[in-house]
Amino acid sequence: MMNRKKFIQTAAALSAGSLLAGCRAEESTQGKAPAIITNKKYKWFMVTTWPPNFPVMGTSCQLFARKVYEMSGGQLDIKVYGAGELIPALEVFDAVSSGTAQIGHGAAYYWTGKVPATQFFTTVPFGLNASEQTAWINHGGGIELWRKIYDRYHLRPFLSGNTALQMGGWFNKEINSMADFKSLKMRIPGLASRILKAVGATPVLVAGGEIYTNLERGVIDATEWVGPYHDQLMGFQDIAKYYYTPGWHEPGSTMELIVHSKAFDELPTHLQQIIEVCAGYCNDWAMSEMLHKNATALDELKNNANIEIRTFSPEILDTLKKVTDETLQALADADEEIKEVYTSYQNYKQMIHQYTNVSEKLYYTRM
Amino acid sequence: MMNRKKFIQTAAALSAGSLLAGCRAEESTQGKAPAIITNKKYKWFMVTTWPPNFPVMGTSCQLFARKVYEMSGGQLDIKVYGAGELIPALEVFDAVSSGTAQIGHGAAYYWTGKVPATQFFTTVPFGLNASEQTAWINHGGGIELWRKIYDRYHLRPFLSGNTALQMGGWFNKEINSMADFKSLKMRIPGLASRILKAVGATPVLVAGGEIYTNLERGVIDATEWVGPYHDQLMGFQDIAKYYYTPGWHEPGSTMELIVHSKAFDELPTHLQQIIEVCAGYCNDWAMSEMLHKNATALDELKNNANIEIRTFSPEILDTLKKVTDETLQALADADEEIKEVYTSYQNYKQMIHQYTNVSEKLYYTRM
Repeated sequence: MMNRKKFIQTAAALSAGSLLAGCRAEESTQGKAPAIITNKKYKWFMVTTWPPNFPVMGTSCQLFARKVYEMSGGQLDIKVYGAGELIPALEVFDAVSSGTAQIGHGAAYYWTGKVPATQFFTTVPFGLNASEQTAWINHGGGIELWRKIYDRYHLRPFLSGNTALQMGGWFNKEINSMADFKSLKMRIPGLASRILKAVGATPVLVAGGEIYTNLERGVIDATEWVGPYHDQLMGFQDIAKYYYTPGWHEPGSTMELIVHSKAFDELPTHLQQIIEVCAGYCNDWAMSEMLHKNATALDELKNNANIEIRTFSPEILDTLKKVTDETLQALADADEEIKEVYTSYQNYKQMIHQYTNVSEKLYYTRM
Repeated sequence: MMNRKKFIQTAAALSAGSLLAGCRAEESTQGKAPAIITNKKYKWFMVTTWPPNFPVMGTSCQLFARKVYEMSGGQLDIKVYGAGELIPALEVFDAVSSGTAQIGHGAAYYWTGKVPATQFFTTVPFGLNASEQTAWINHGGGIELWRKIYDRYHLRPFLSGNTALQMGGWFNKEINSMADFKSLKMRIPGLASRILKAVGATPVLVAGGEIYTNLERGVIDATEWVGPYHDQLMGFQDIAKYYYTPGWHEPGSTMELIVHSKAFDELPTHLQQIIEVCAGYCNDWAMSEMLHKNATALDELKNNANIEIRTFSPEILDTLKKVTDETLQALADADEEIKEVYTSYQNYKQMIHQYTNVSEKLYYTRM
């Protein structure tokens, strides 16, 4: 950690035209001998949880594979498969864990049935937003916990994409108070379904391809999906009246890249680095693509006379948050590993919100 | 653009266990012949505007060079120089433009004296925040304009880092109303100094290494710098009473990586891709590092009994914003190139704020 005096001395160099007398040129960290590149070629299979060509999440995998191929001069050739093309979406974790596929892409919270703590490596209701999540993962202890947990499944995880804050869903009933959740039939998976059940709603599991017709026919009253871009592609604006926000249940959902440990460890260093750096590149690219496409889609949806964009009231969000806190605490109390991850996550959230409250949030509210 | 029916069909694959009958495996975009890798080694010099080892901005350049070296197996060896080690900070643009150095790193708004439109490629007062800026650059037309303008200076630009929202500065006078700006002597560079001058303040240019003593002695009443992390290193908390927020003048300052066109074009494809991908990786890494370090620093500063963290009033921010809008419009009216960039930027801001108002901003305010 640099002391203040030295920092000011070095900061002096920022002033126009000053030379930093006596300062030696930055010693190249590249002084060591170059990595040995073999001529061995690697042909890998990437299995993913996304349908083929699924915009952003799926196409970011294609981008990843293309960039890796180009950066490695063709040495690492990854063929990307969408869900169902080789294996079903929900078998991706096991396929990469066993080494059947060398690499995979999806979301960690798909695997909470087998590894409950993975929830936090994607998102939790009322949790960190996308940039806070990236900070926790990269610098706040998140990646160390993630690697430790995944290591016993022979997986190396990398964060690689984010949905940004999701929307709260499409409803054919108004949600003005907690009473409106009673008996609400809503398609909403995962941890959020527990929260809704606790407040008297009826969460329903519906396959992606059946949501539209179920909502249209009134089999369900509501559904969540992703954000304006993906929602618009599903056509929910044609059959639902109210588009609620915010997506309290998924405030910044991280995508994961997983690599079979042995396959990763056997790569020469330069290919390991290519994978790691490309994952970070895709994390940034997919997030900005999501923001852009969502903004463009909402620009159209806002003019749609058939729908109303509504916000959940503070009362509703306060109640859902309270139930979330109780639910997460109960999960942590029952499982040591969840407790460990939850503690890191909650402490980080508290610290980073201290800061974002007087910076990013403040700027948003004063703009 | 995928039509709805096809999208739903592909979305059906997201449901557990379903196979997508008849769907062919994703054709590898990697079917083309591998890039030819020569054995030619490249030894480059990177000149930067940052003091040697300057945390985050400077150290991200070292990270960039190290990752490039590792990914290329040592083929592209970049030696990083801080400001003043080879050339002064403000000669970086010309050095890379002329090809004296192959690559550089800094901030585009340092060059507004020679290329006025560059302001927008870093930040403007009351402008886009970090993630909105990345979306505009990557997807909203920003990078195309940036490349077009820089091309005539033989430069290829890449966004590569962000300061996140800066703080509003350190003050030894309270700023309760616009009257408190009258005759305020504040160290604040660039476009923001024009705004402050217009509201009656006296912006003062002070070299980085002299800010502390000038503030201590009352030569200036106030200064801005970066955010909690860098500000704390400068020690302003020892000599200033009020720490104001938000940094209305720099809401999401983008760092730039610039490469001499000829040097870039002469690289084999795989090294060009390594540079591009690594720039994106560093963009993500530096932003999350900045958030993390700022949060950690503020966690300490908040306990400092000698300072008060204050927020600028809505009245003050509204006035500064109004003056900003007038100033930017005047600049655009006087220069075709500024007008072109400004128009793209403002249109994008309007569109993306429509979206963030009902998503990220809403979530912050309801949390």
